[in-house]
Amino acid sequence: MHRTELTELIVARRIEAGVTWQDLADAVDRPVVWTTAALLGQHPIPRPEAEVLVEKLGLPTDVVALLGAVPVRGTDRDVAVSDPTIYRLYEALAVYGPALKELIHEKFGDGIMSAINFSLDIDKVPHDSGDRVVITFDGKFLPYDWVSGR
Amino acid sequence: MHRTELTELIVARRIEAGVTWQDLADAVDRPVVWTTAALLGQHPIPRPEAEVLVEKLGLPTDVVALLGAVPVRGTDRDVAVSDPTIYRLYEALAVYGPALKELIHEKFGDGIMSAINFSLDIDKVPHDSGDRVVITFDGKFLPYDWVSGR
Amino acid sequence: MHRTELTELIVARRIEAGVTWQDLADAVDRPVVWTTAALLGQHPIPRPEAEVLVEKLGLPTDVVALLGAVPVRGTDRDVAVSDPTIYRLYEALAVYGPALKELIHEKFGDGIMSAINFSLDIDKVPHDSGDRVVITFDGKFLPYDWVSGR
Amino acid sequence: MHRTELTELIVARRIEAGVTWQDLADAVDRPVVWTTAALLGQHPIPRPEAEVLVEKLGLPTDVVALLGAVPVRGTDRDVAVSDPTIYRLYEALAVYGPALKELIHEKFGDGIMSAINFSLDIDKVPHDSGDRVVITFDGKFLPYDWVSGR
Amino acid sequence: MHRTELTELIVARRIEAGVTWQDLADAVDRPVVWTTAALLGQHPIPRPEAEVLVEKLGLPTDVVALLGAVPVRGTDRDVAVSDPTIYRLYEALAVYGPALKELIHEKFGDGIMSAINFSLDIDKVPHDSGDRVVITFDGKFLPYDWVSGR
Amino acid sequence: MHRTELTELIVARRIEAGVTWQDLADAVDRPVVWTTAALLGQHPIPRPEAEVLVEKLGLPTDVVALLGAVPVRGTDRDVAVSDPTIYRLYEALAVYGPALKELIHEKFGDGIMSAINFSLDIDKVPHDSGDRVVITFDGKFLPYDWVSGR
Amino acid sequence: MHRTELTELIVARRIEAGVTWQDLADAVDRPVVWTTAALLGQHPIPRPEAEVLVEKLGLPTDVVALLGAVPVRGTDRDVAVSDPTIYRLYEALAVYGPALKELIHEKFGDGIMSAINFSLDIDKVPHDSGDRVVITFDGKFLPYDWVSGR
Amino acid sequence: MHRTELTELIVARRIEAGVTWQDLADAVDRPVVWTTAALLGQHPIPRPEAEVLVEKLGLPTDVVALLGAVPVRGTDRDVAVSDPTIYRLYEALAVYGPALKELIHEKFGDGIMSAINFSLDIDKVPHDSGDRVVITFDGKFLPYDWVSGR
Amino acid sequence: MHRTELTELIVARRIEAGVTWQDLADAVDRPVVWTTAALLGQHPIPRPEAEVLVEKLGLPTDVVALLGAVPVRGTDRDVAVSDPTIYRLYEALAVYGPALKELIHEKFGDGIMSAINFSLDIDKVPHDSGDRVVITFDGKFLPYDWVSGR
Amino acid sequence: MHRTELTELIVARRIEAGVTWQDLADAVDRPVVWTTAALLGQHPIPRPEAEVLVEKLGLPTDVVALLGAVPVRGTDRDVAVSDPTIYRLYEALAVYGPALKELIHEKFGDGIMSAINFSLDIDKVPHDSGDRVVITFDGKFLPYDWVSGR
Repeated sequence: MHRTELTELIVARRIEAGVTWQDLADAVDRPVVWTTAALLGQHPIPRPEAEVLVEKLGLPTDVVALLGAVPVRGTDRDVAVSDPTIYRLYEALAVYGPALKELIHEKFGDGIMSAINFSLDIDKVPHDSGDRVVITFDGKFLPYDWVSGR
Repeated sequence: MHRTELTELIVARRIEAGVTWQDLADAVDRPVVWTTAALLGQHPIPRPEAEVLVEKLGLPTDVVALLGAVPVRGTDRDVAVSDPTIYRLYEALAVYGPALKELIHEKFGDGIMSAINFSLDIDKVPHDSGDRVVITFDGKFLPYDWVSGR
Repeated sequence: MHRTELTELIVARRIEAGVTWQDLADAVDRPVVWTTAALLGQHPIPRPEAEVLVEKLGLPTDVVALLGAVPVRGTDRDVAVSDPTIYRLYEALAVYGPALKELIHEKFGDGIMSAINFSLDIDKVPHDSGDRVVITFDGKFLPYDWVSGR
Repeated sequence: MHRTELTELIVARRIEAGVTWQDLADAVDRPVVWTTAALLGQHPIPRPEAEVLVEKLGLPTDVVALLGAVPVRGTDRDVAVSDPTIYRLYEALAVYGPALKELIHEKFGDGIMSAINFSLDIDKVPHDSGDRVVITFDGKFLPYDWVSGR
Repeated sequence: MHRTELTELIVARRIEAGVTWQDLADAVDRPVVWTTAALLGQHPIPRPEAEVLVEKLGLPTDVVALLGAVPVRGTDRDVAVSDPTIYRLYEALAVYGPALKELIHEKFGDGIMSAINFSLDIDKVPHDSGDRVVITFDGKFLPYDWVSGR
Repeated sequence: MHRTELTELIVARRIEAGVTWQDLADAVDRPVVWTTAALLGQHPIPRPEAEVLVEKLGLPTDVVALLGAVPVRGTDRDVAVSDPTIYRLYEALAVYGPALKELIHEKFGDGIMSAINFSLDIDKVPHDSGDRVVITFDGKFLPYDWVSGR
Repeated sequence: MHRTELTELIVARRIEAGVTWQDLADAVDRPVVWTTAALLGQHPIPRPEAEVLVEKLGLPTDVVALLGAVPVRGTDRDVAVSDPTIYRLYEALAVYGPALKELIHEKFGDGIMSAINFSLDIDKVPHDSGDRVVITFDGKFLPYDWVSGR
Repeated sequence: MHRTELTELIVARRIEAGVTWQDLADAVDRPVVWTTAALLGQHPIPRPEAEVLVEKLGLPTDVVALLGAVPVRGTDRDVAVSDPTIYRLYEALAVYGPALKELIHEKFGDGIMSAINFSLDIDKVPHDSGDRVVITFDGKFLPYDWVSGR
Repeated sequence: MHRTELTELIVARRIEAGVTWQDLADAVDRPVVWTTAALLGQHPIPRPEAEVLVEKLGLPTDVVALLGAVPVRGTDRDVAVSDPTIYRLYEALAVYGPALKELIHEKFGDGIMSAINFSLDIDKVPHDSGDRVVITFDGKFLPYDWVSGR
Repeated sequence: MHRTELTELIVARRIEAGVTWQDLADAVDRPVVWTTAALLGQHPIPRPEAEVLVEKLGLPTDVVALLGAVPVRGTDRDVAVSDPTIYRLYEALAVYGPALKELIHEKFGDGIMSAINFSLDIDKVPHDSGDRVVITFDGKFLPYDWVSGR
């Protein structure tokens, strides 16, 4: 089975089984964003966690090895962006991305926020004018550094 | 003058003047992300703040009206994405965007995080393994709602 | 089954069954634009309505859960735009979109027409020179507002 | 002068002059959407109206002929779509376009809504949950008809 | 069956059956361009004609309803343009399209040639220097007209 | 001067001078489609005709050589297609192009309609239901022929 | 069977059978470039030759009619260009294409090299510094000629 | 001056001066394809030849250094392909490119035709059915070879 | 079987079998980068090596011929670039590619680094600040050389 | 001045001045790849080095501040890839990129080679079959690590 077929199967099985992503995260004691992303094909899943998830979702047991392989990451952007819920995230970057670049350089110097040494969280925050979606990107600052190992 | 020409002028003048974005934000008593984005052409700037900023940056005074007009927002994505500092933000969405969609729906129901009733913040957080860039998206949840005003 | 496969099945079954979209909307007592869009994969359908529609269209009963899941919305634009009936809608935006932006800002201030708190209607209006297609977009105005929940 | 340069000049002059689009429409006694679109380069403007508008905006008088020429219509879509206010209009079509196609065919038969024998209006409608932007597309139905003039 | 699959089936069956497009047009007493385009998925085919064509091509009888549905029109342009026979048609528009626009406006005023109230013909015309392909576009002129049905 | 700049100049001068394309064609005794296309940069213009046209349009006399050079032909398709008048021509090909390919092969054999040994005409044809735009493509049939000159 | 599926089958069968393209060309007594291109889906193959090739490649006999139909020509360019062997051909055009245009016009006048009345050959030419690939494009010159058959 | 500006200047000056590419090639005693390509910005031109060409074309003498620099090669493909004379070259590759790949491998083994150790020639060859354009690509065969210099 | 299907099968079988790429390279005594690339469809694999690899991976034995055929090389760039591990390689070229071009010309003259007479290596190099990935491109310099074999 | 204009100026001045990139690197005692890339707009240049380079290249002294600002990095890929010297680098990634991904994961685990904590070198290595271009990418391995600073 190809990993993208497995992802489609996971998506279908979760809906049929009526299980939440939070349930699945709790079952393996991992953060819910990590667990959801991993099941959607963005992170390898270690064998013990994979075995639990395979059972909870009623997947064939021989996919454990595939779940443990490093996947080809990323999302077909044309598909992703057509959805309004995802589009708003990209819209925020289109409006504020250059400002963030300027401020990363002003606060930290020349470099980047790592997307590898990185975590991401989502919270529901009550507010007088209605609940708010709060998403936090948290990545290590990496300064440009001209290092050679040879 | 076209707004994009004004943006280029602002970018050049700030470097020549050696003024930080934080200085400019302080001068108008607004959040630094908002101020930076507004100067880069993403928000209209009210007259009083515009007058202060025009003076600080040594811009011609007749651009105050243009700074106050609602701009055509957004960034040429091809240009923006070629820069590694900005790219990491898009990479995070490519890896975690579908997971965020699933979790917004699981936590809030069918709808979106607004990018209009919205704020964005960036912090420098010390950590044992090195300083961290922490970026917070904070938008009102808007449920899909089939309302008619007629 | 993947939601796009289910959409193709719905399209085929409706033609075979000779049922109109209006019939389907009446059966679930919902607006016809909403019902059509939902069946075409743009809105989740609550269980009671889904059960009625599944029966009317002779779909397998186990798709009720899938119809109730929040879909990945949107249309492959290249495909959609090649059809002359759909193209005329995009043509109207190409010609009048920037004017609408100017007038939204002039009448309401800086912000957007929501496409989430939104409804859409289509009417057949008789006219001396021939029947007219009248399509109404009706969305809540959302002003740009820099709010933080933290 | 090229028409796109004239459009940029009109945009700049209107902001400097502090004149509203409604003022300009009133001055020539035409619908405001038509007037705004025409000034933005989407319709030829007859000589009498052009002369009035040239005076109100302080444009050089020799642009009257250019304003009267049939323009190359349309908008660079990549630019237009990057703006959130315009994007919501396209989003509505991405979500509801195929449903509108189905319903045009169901209500009228095989054919299109004309975007040429067409008008477009925008209203501000008060509502308990906030003002609403109501945009109306109004085009003649044109049935597919295999006619030959020879 | 999806309409594009049906189109592929029609293409294959016609070659296997050794039937010409003209034969098929004669069998239903319709213009050959219309008949060919309709079978290739560009026009709905009324039941009586569909029944004749289904029999001539040996298609399964249950596709009559699908042939009668309004199709999603248009051609994947990248595919179409790679073929030299089709490409020459697009090349003619690339070279003469802007001239045609100027002359439509000069001869008729501001408006378009309809592609809906429209017919198209192809003839073989003998000539001393070799046979000529003569293709005629014949569409009603539609003037831009700002009409409202409300 | 670059040929595209010259084209823009020609477009502007013709509007200012209030001269029709037909006037220009008459002045050089050439078909109006050829003349319009040539002035818009699609055909070299022989010296005698170029001298007449330069005078009629009040162009600088040193552009005669440039008008006589073989141009880089074609139109930026994205720009051209955004205009509804031009778009309808492309729409006709999107709907009928594959049918034309089939019929060229059925009537003539394997080959193409030349767009080089080619002429194009546009007529205004009165009709009870309104004037019709009739456009004729007229190209020599060229059969695929595996010839070698060596 | 669709012609692209047949092409994939031909590609696979030839490898399995260990037959060279030259063998296949010899079997039907046609030029090897023509034969290879025809089998790869670029030219119709007359019945006698098709029957020989079907036997040599062990294809099902009912594909003879499909091999004889005029194909949709061309190659998906994105796919083709990713291969270094094919890419070098495109690279030569990227570097020398505009020069060839200039020289065709200088040597022949305004017109094109036909790609229809055309042949193409490939030779292996020994050279002191290593064997050379020599590819010859050989097409009839077609002058631009404004001919009408009506 | 940027090299692309210099190219535009060369193109204009050559037309004004009425000099052929062959004249220019003769003046520097180089092949005409090489000379034309070099002047169009595809090869550096050594100082002695550059000085001759600068004089023949009446260019400012200080461009000799720029003509001698290694250029950024290649052509904007969208522009190049819109011209029918150039397009026919690409069309030949679209139709015959995959066949050439197969035959290079069959005749030479796994590898490529170099486009660097390469020459290209164009000839006018008389033929009973009309003059022929004969273009020869002549490149060294380079076999895939896994060599390491370390 | 199509080569891309075989590649997917190889990818799946290797994971299931728990074999490393290094194991496979050792089994055929070839460099590991070459072996991995060849199995992923980028190089033909000679029969003896192919037979060993087919056995190690438990592939059907009849794929040996397909593994030995020259493949259509290259990677769908959109897919490849979405993965962060691969993207960093492209990012390095986006940042340093033009500098490498300048330095190749400065050190070697006008020409290229061959990607055909070429090898590539990857090493793990310990360093105080963490292990380093060291990738070496090693290609023969090929000077631009206008050679003709005729 | 905009940074891209400054880059064009630097490119032109270096050619006119006849200075090598190595000379410039020596003048500021930095690696030549870093220096070249920095001058081409990919790295900020500290004030002391910027002052030396400004003098060597005869640039206006007020560009020192602009050279010191963090640039928007990256290259317009369409432009860069059209050049054969640069293209070979991308070709190597198209052929070997997926293999490198597999081997990074096999040798280091799940993660990336940093392009930030990174250096790049180019050498000329003599070899019996001709000089070789050896390019070394040297980046720190960064393992995927779900760290949060909050």
